[in-house]
Amino acid sequence: MEDFKVLEIKTSIFSDNSLQASKLREELKDKKVFLLNLMSSPGAGKTTTLTRTIEALKHRLRIGVMEADIDSDVDARTIQKTGVKTIQLHTGGMCHLDAEMTRQGLEGLDTDGLDLVILENVGNLVCPAEFDTGAVKNAMILSIPEGDDKPLKYPLMFSVCDVVLINKMDVMPYFDFDLETCKADIRLRNPNAIIIPISALRNEGIKEWTDWLNNAVKSWCE
Amino acid sequence: MEDFKVLEIKTSIFSDNSLQASKLREELKDKKVFLLNLMSSPGAGKTTTLTRTIEALKHRLRIGVMEADIDSDVDARTIQKTGVKTIQLHTGGMCHLDAEMTRQGLEGLDTDGLDLVILENVGNLVCPAEFDTGAVKNAMILSIPEGDDKPLKYPLMFSVCDVVLINKMDVMPYFDFDLETCKADIRLRNPNAIIIPISALRNEGIKEWTDWLNNAVKSWCE
Repeated sequence: MEDFKVLEIKTSIFSDNSLQASKLREELKDKKVFLLNLMSSPGAGKTTTLTRTIEALKHRLRIGVMEADIDSDVDARTIQKTGVKTIQLHTGGMCHLDAEMTRQGLEGLDTDGLDLVILENVGNLVCPAEFDTGAVKNAMILSIPEGDDKPLKYPLMFSVCDVVLINKMDVMPYFDFDLETCKADIRLRNPNAIIIPISALRNEGIKEWTDWLNNAVKSWCE
Repeated sequence: MEDFKVLEIKTSIFSDNSLQASKLREELKDKKVFLLNLMSSPGAGKTTTLTRTIEALKHRLRIGVMEADIDSDVDARTIQKTGVKTIQLHTGGMCHLDAEMTRQGLEGLDTDGLDLVILENVGNLVCPAEFDTGAVKNAMILSIPEGDDKPLKYPLMFSVCDVVLINKMDVMPYFDFDLETCKADIRLRNPNAIIIPISALRNEGIKEWTDWLNNAVKSWCE
């Protein structure tokens, strides 16, 4: 098993993040590397979902993972066990990543020979939604215990995501969560959002999600 | 039932937030008003816990609530039903409140005749921890479904809180959450933290929490 690198990323010096993000996306297109930005609240199940995603796709795609955290390397250690190339990004207290910070991460990871890089963003429904990281697609995880009112309370996050995974479906019986209301509220913010209910723990719904992701990577890298 | 006010708060113009926070705390001391800053991830149960807290204390204390949200007034509507004075603060996309923003909220609420004001901060484990709001005490809610590793991943939040409520104890059997490890990791960051397991849904642990809060208010207002 390889060791993973821990990179202390620096606050961005660029004022025009959108421009930096567009540039980064063009470079990724040239290199045929697909970058997915994965966001959620703390504890929604990003790391478990990521583990399932890697298990499903690692024989079809060459995958790298960037684990962004304020501190700690708990998640990088978990992901590293899947055998994919992993880097831990420490944001030094920053609550989000912008395009320049993402670029530092990609350089630290080294994307040579990779098809898919997944950025596990800082656990936060507010700030990460405000910054284009340069990713090709954004996905977010909403978990059942968080409640069905989150699309109303964190509208921007739901607007910027191409895919919303509704996770922890296995504990649905123990929570007051109305799936149809939640879906309708997501579509209100983002009519094109792809919504996939999953249970990362039980490996349910992962096929639909990873098929979508695999197709997205294929069409980007063509 | 009274209507509640919705206040669009403005970004702070002060550079020294600590100074503004200390000033605000002194003014609250003079007015004998106790301000509690309640923080958590999205969906950890702030509003339900707040409802239980109000039910337990409203005959002993005169309570006001400030509901801070990016958007929406879902929570203010819920809290207003308890009969206490409520104001909805819209942060205009901001991920936290600082002391000046909190002051705007308190002026909008009007604290005359109140003993206890509770600020329900934006659902976020990162940014709210970085800004002293001027509150007398900070409390946070960590919920079982979020996982026991949160004190490692969001250390500052656990360091700045006087009380950590561990909520959704009723769903403990369905999650892999080690309470003792979690408590030990909280104490590592904050040896003085008061840790109280609760189930807001089942009204369990609320007496211990509200007894602590009631005593804290009494000693502040003496």
